[in-house]
Amino acid sequence: MTIPARPPQLYDYDTDGTSIYQKSFGMIRAEADLSHFTEAQATVAVRMIHAAGDPSLAEQIAFSPGLVDAARTALRGGAPIYTDATMIAAGITRRRLPADNDVICALQDPRVPEIAQAWQTTRSAAAVSLWDRLEGAVVAVGNAPTALFQLLEIVAAGGPRPAAVLGIPVGFVGSPESKVALAQNPYGLEWLVVHGRRGGSALASSAINALSREQEI
Amino acid sequence: MTIPARPPQLYDYDTDGTSIYQKSFGMIRAEADLSHFTEAQATVAVRMIHAAGDPSLAEQIAFSPGLVDAARTALRGGAPIYTDATMIAAGITRRRLPADNDVICALQDPRVPEIAQAWQTTRSAAAVSLWDRLEGAVVAVGNAPTALFQLLEIVAAGGPRPAAVLGIPVGFVGSPESKVALAQNPYGLEWLVVHGRRGGSALASSAINALSREQEI
Repeated sequence: MTIPARPPQLYDYDTDGTSIYQKSFGMIRAEADLSHFTEAQATVAVRMIHAAGDPSLAEQIAFSPGLVDAARTALRGGAPIYTDATMIAAGITRRRLPADNDVICALQDPRVPEIAQAWQTTRSAAAVSLWDRLEGAVVAVGNAPTALFQLLEIVAAGGPRPAAVLGIPVGFVGSPESKVALAQNPYGLEWLVVHGRRGGSALASSAINALSREQEI
Repeated sequence: MTIPARPPQLYDYDTDGTSIYQKSFGMIRAEADLSHFTEAQATVAVRMIHAAGDPSLAEQIAFSPGLVDAARTALRGGAPIYTDATMIAAGITRRRLPADNDVICALQDPRVPEIAQAWQTTRSAAAVSLWDRLEGAVVAVGNAPTALFQLLEIVAAGGPRPAAVLGIPVGFVGSPESKVALAQNPYGLEWLVVHGRRGGSALASSAINALSREQEI
């Protein structure tokens, strides 16, 4: 192919992707208070802070002690990853996954509207009922508190148990409460949360990307 | 199909999507300082704050005076939407678009690595060179400052001019500077930015979703 000519560079900016990552991660480690994390947890937190563009996020990130090991073991073993939003699935870097893991968002499944109607709940929550390989899976909720509550209710009712649950829904209604419910879950689930209202697909996929591979970049 | 039984609801949470949206938007309008926005701008800002889970984002959001009208006119006229990340494309609600507009992310184009190599830049910036219907388009940059700088350099060199540019890259290196460059652009481009480090795909797609339709929900 014929490569078009690059227009003159008018602005002074870094164009080396690896260098940008390294500088960014260095700035985050210099600015964020990571003292309440283990080293492995800090690696996950740094990537989430990078996705948020805000070192203060560190204060809201919390892990169960076994989360990192449980998620990494599950991913290496080929566990599927379930998400509540297509954006999270789009943000997961496939080449970082250790076992070419399936990444599944059931929101577009044609059965979802009917289940949502029957259960009198959101489509996001209804989609959780279609996570049919949930036992031992890794779950990343980055959008809907209702999906996170629904998951907890499925587990509470004796349903399948995921190996690790990232509870990072964003929002003003139900979101903070859903994360507290996950972090205080009496079912023995391993968890990661971003307490409060902040969260979202970018944070959820960056957490998965960090857990997928031990090397930071 | 047979609908599975809903497990017992153990937690107290709202499961009505419209009600959740309305309550959330009400909380945002009560808490965020929207006084520096026009009414149309405020509608866009509210949806972005909703995606961020943080009313303080209002302080960083800025618009050129003509941005909302320019973007809405372009979208109604069928303009394509170019994004620098597949996550943004995944986050754009297609049913809100007024003219079934094309949503294009060129990052996976097989020519991108070769152009990035030849131009000595990132793949995100190289992909901008493949935005071949850029004249009159709506652009949403939510990831890479290099993509935003590259766009400005293409316009500066006399290339095609988009109708509206959302400059919302997230990050620590180059991101704040790229937004200042857009907001101060001498090319007459209409712009929306989130000043500082914050930004990202969720904010970019929520801005597009707000601009796609005048009704808030």
